[in-house]
Amino acid sequence: MSDYQHPYRDSEFVLSQLVGFDALCEAAGLEGINMELATTVIEEAGKLGSGVLAPLNKDGDHKGATISDQAVQQTPGFSEAYQQMVEGGWLSLNAPEDFGGQGLPKVLGTAVNEIWHSANMAFALCPLLSQGAIEALSHHGSEELKNLFLPKLISGEWTGTMNLTEPDAGSDLAAVKSKAIPEGDAYRISGTKIFITWGDHQMTDNIVHLVLARLPDAPAGVKGISLFVVPKFLLDAEGNTTAERNTAFALSLEHKLGIHGSPTCVMEFEGALGYLVGEPHNGLKYMFTMMNDARQGVGLQGLAISERAYQLARQYARDRLQGTRRDGSRIAIIEHPDVRRMLMSMRSTIEAMRALCLMAAAELDHARLVAGDEAALHMARAELYTPIVKGWCTEMSVELTSLGVQVHGGMGFVEETGAAQYFRDARILPIYEGTTGIQALDFIGRKMLSNKGETLAALLADMQETLEQAREADALPDVALANLETAIQLGATTRIFLLENTASEADLAPTTAVNFMMQFGYLTGAWLLVAGAIKARELLAAGNGDPEFLNAKLITARFFLEHMLPRSLSHASTVLSGSASCMELAADQF
Amino acid sequence: MSDYQHPYRDSEFVLSQLVGFDALCEAAGLEGINMELATTVIEEAGKLGSGVLAPLNKDGDHKGATISDQAVQQTPGFSEAYQQMVEGGWLSLNAPEDFGGQGLPKVLGTAVNEIWHSANMAFALCPLLSQGAIEALSHHGSEELKNLFLPKLISGEWTGTMNLTEPDAGSDLAAVKSKAIPEGDAYRISGTKIFITWGDHQMTDNIVHLVLARLPDAPAGVKGISLFVVPKFLLDAEGNTTAERNTAFALSLEHKLGIHGSPTCVMEFEGALGYLVGEPHNGLKYMFTMMNDARQGVGLQGLAISERAYQLARQYARDRLQGTRRDGSRIAIIEHPDVRRMLMSMRSTIEAMRALCLMAAAELDHARLVAGDEAALHMARAELYTPIVKGWCTEMSVELTSLGVQVHGGMGFVEETGAAQYFRDARILPIYEGTTGIQALDFIGRKMLSNKGETLAALLADMQETLEQAREADALPDVALANLETAIQLGATTRIFLLENTASEADLAPTTAVNFMMQFGYLTGAWLLVAGAIKARELLAAGNGDPEFLNAKLITARFFLEHMLPRSLSHASTVLSGSASCMELAADQF
Repeated sequence: MSDYQHPYRDSEFVLSQLVGFDALCEAAGLEGINMELATTVIEEAGKLGSGVLAPLNKDGDHKGATISDQAVQQTPGFSEAYQQMVEGGWLSLNAPEDFGGQGLPKVLGTAVNEIWHSANMAFALCPLLSQGAIEALSHHGSEELKNLFLPKLISGEWTGTMNLTEPDAGSDLAAVKSKAIPEGDAYRISGTKIFITWGDHQMTDNIVHLVLARLPDAPAGVKGISLFVVPKFLLDAEGNTTAERNTAFALSLEHKLGIHGSPTCVMEFEGALGYLVGEPHNGLKYMFTMMNDARQGVGLQGLAISERAYQLARQYARDRLQGTRRDGSRIAIIEHPDVRRMLMSMRSTIEAMRALCLMAAAELDHARLVAGDEAALHMARAELYTPIVKGWCTEMSVELTSLGVQVHGGMGFVEETGAAQYFRDARILPIYEGTTGIQALDFIGRKMLSNKGETLAALLADMQETLEQAREADALPDVALANLETAIQLGATTRIFLLENTASEADLAPTTAVNFMMQFGYLTGAWLLVAGAIKARELLAAGNGDPEFLNAKLITARFFLEHMLPRSLSHASTVLSGSASCMELAADQF
Repeated sequence: MSDYQHPYRDSEFVLSQLVGFDALCEAAGLEGINMELATTVIEEAGKLGSGVLAPLNKDGDHKGATISDQAVQQTPGFSEAYQQMVEGGWLSLNAPEDFGGQGLPKVLGTAVNEIWHSANMAFALCPLLSQGAIEALSHHGSEELKNLFLPKLISGEWTGTMNLTEPDAGSDLAAVKSKAIPEGDAYRISGTKIFITWGDHQMTDNIVHLVLARLPDAPAGVKGISLFVVPKFLLDAEGNTTAERNTAFALSLEHKLGIHGSPTCVMEFEGALGYLVGEPHNGLKYMFTMMNDARQGVGLQGLAISERAYQLARQYARDRLQGTRRDGSRIAIIEHPDVRRMLMSMRSTIEAMRALCLMAAAELDHARLVAGDEAALHMARAELYTPIVKGWCTEMSVELTSLGVQVHGGMGFVEETGAAQYFRDARILPIYEGTTGIQALDFIGRKMLSNKGETLAALLADMQETLEQAREADALPDVALANLETAIQLGATTRIFLLENTASEADLAPTTAVNFMMQFGYLTGAWLLVAGAIKARELLAAGNGDPEFLNAKLITARFFLEHMLPRSLSHASTVLSGSASCMELAADQF
């Protein structure tokens, strides 16, 4: 048996009970798509994940990608696994039907993607990046470009990459220096890009690079950046890959803390032939349209790797004996109260993360697939969730994979055990696709202050409603629900505090942003678990479903309210203390 | 210049202003030992640390220890560095004068040891382990054993190891199976020990293993474990190393997440010649007498590696430019508010940890060196601090070294940067020498419940007194001190809650232990920073000292009260929620 088994029932519980998957599909007019299909899809994906991808996860770590002669060789076995995903149609679930995609709701694709990332995060980054390229092209590319690139990107015959970062331009993309010189209908792209995930490999016969660069007449700053598509091998008139290599090369690979199976390339573009995507100087805007999806995708990785770490820790806790009962029998450490505390911390936070990731994806579906007045509200909610999904879930993944190590004691520090790999792999998540600090600025600025806190007020009102329902339904003990009440009130308090004071205190928003976002991470997670507890209580009362499974939902929710949610109080306290102590020291006093 | 410079003034501030080093030495009758000497010692140690040990730290990581033919080869350069430490007399600072030690107070040795661990933690583990062997032998060995082993252990000519853990006996030492068979005046020791730090190397001509094993007539459980000393090479009648190898061998090395420079050995004892230390069956008791020192030593490593990570992050934040001012000049990220927040979190917590580590060591000095009625109170306080030093400082070190990675953004995930090494190295600290869970059980049980909370009540009373002094002295803004007041009150609340309820709720103490200990970690750290702020305010008012340095102490203390201390509230809230949600799930429901 594989050491990873996807917890199907947990995904299905969120989809059916919180997301309302059937109602969503009906509203979206998606015929034939329902919970029954979703269940089948998730279970089939789980088999591929456990059987094919998960066993390659350690290989990726030990036999990471290598480079020679500007060609990257991926981990042995990865190419065959990739072909299986292509052949099974697994890479086109969410893609538009016009170009061969299956057009399934994003929320279902998200449930499936969790499996790939749990099974083998370094590997699954490759299709994750392709997805970004597909979205950029399908939203902003000309019909010609779409016809040329989309069918093969969607089928998985080709993979895609995102080339944004340069040595001097990380979080600050205004500093991008790569150049694009017009040549006929096309362009010649030159420049160095770093941290390019899956920038090269031998799994497909072509790779489609999306590249940010400046046209000769471009204004300075972020408004002068254009987006280009640059294939690894040039195409012929029919759009087929030729043997002619474009001058876009992987120069070197980073020697990283984790995700060794994912080649992180320095890419050199030396007058490479490229095609402009959309209008000139709009590149950054186009990147932003993909941002919700990409960032939610990385948040999902946080959930996924935490789940994998949890499964390993749980197994060890069952197997490892320490301590002896009076009758002489030895005790598995899963019986030790502090190991229990660690496993419950992992489990409850994972369930909160899963609920959040799926709800956030469902909001995007509501906004995109369901016409009507509500679409804008759903998009606003999705955009509010996105930095929480990315920021909070990835920060938690570092802590939870660390707990995974801790459950193992000394064995956790030994690499063969595997717990350390998850801890190392997870550490990239709060960094790439926008650091936690960047997510928090997005949350406090674009998502909160810029609309006078209205979207957040609506979220808080939903939370209050759920709290009242939970009380009415007696879903959880009063003391636990009192924690939720306090946390909601503090959410309202910090929201008002920030709305009232950021204008007069320039450093207030940027110094409090991370604490404010984390405060809402715990709170949103708690709220969704309570919503789940209400449903579990209803199902129990109706005699529907597995009582043991449903009772576990109640216990897990209570644990989260008692052990994790109180942290939102300390984050709120820090927000309310303002910016003074953070900024008072001069830079040279550090 | 080395990339590590010890912050002398910070150590000296704690020694002179909080510890009262001169008064301690006077009370202990230590002539000629005073702040002036301490300053010189610390500064000289700093030079050795920066100049010799720190440059070898990356080497230890890249060219870790190797093994062939049961002989461990340490990292190139380590042996020469070790000889420099021996020749400089650095290994004997705290050791008893009767056997060649220098008899300096432990608090000064602690200040110096911080430097070794910051400079090269994997390397400095070797003398740390020797120190354990020295203490075991000097407290419990016969005169003959002392004369045989102590002089060369103290000078550093030989190193020492601690052989406790076995494959089935980790936290649960009752399960130790190694055997000791009497043979004449000596014993033949057989068994397998794992996780033996610096179990073998070629830096000295002998190694002194302290080994837990059972005599043939030993009772089961912890009361049947005896302590033996087993040299790597046999000694002649004069106590000199002979060429005859004892049958105590390193079989293999662990492949670890971090501290690659420290060989972690599987040791096989195959009828090795050993000598009994003290009385039979008392081995575990003897281990416990060393525990305060050993655990405080590991807590100190948490401080030390956090300081090193901070220095690297600070430098990067000064050098790395992201973002552009209106005048076109680029901005160093140390000016970015969220980077500020991360650096201040590191800095303020490091200062709290340093104050705690030195105060805890000073309590041991008071208890051991100063006769009188107070000795027992000082020992009780030292024992109360010990699990906080070990548990809290090491947990914080994982978080702070992670922040060190985060400050670097994508570069933090690239191994060459060095931030990732500290993150990997730190991860062992909450595990070895008793996991965080074990520390917390010690704190809540032996240190709190077993004396009806009296020692803790005395600590809380001291905190209250400091709070009142701080208010009188206007040392910090009222809002910040209000956080301390709340936290002290909650400390009192959880103390009483536990005293009143642990008897009736069996799982209460073990499920709440870690949260209770962490609550007091933040609180104790905050208290000591406030005590330092009072002193800084006094010095400023008197026109003594560097105003910029002293003002920075005020800012740092305030930051800690506003950003870190509020976490004690959430830990308290979790303690007060009891054990139910933690233990309710059945083991097979995970």
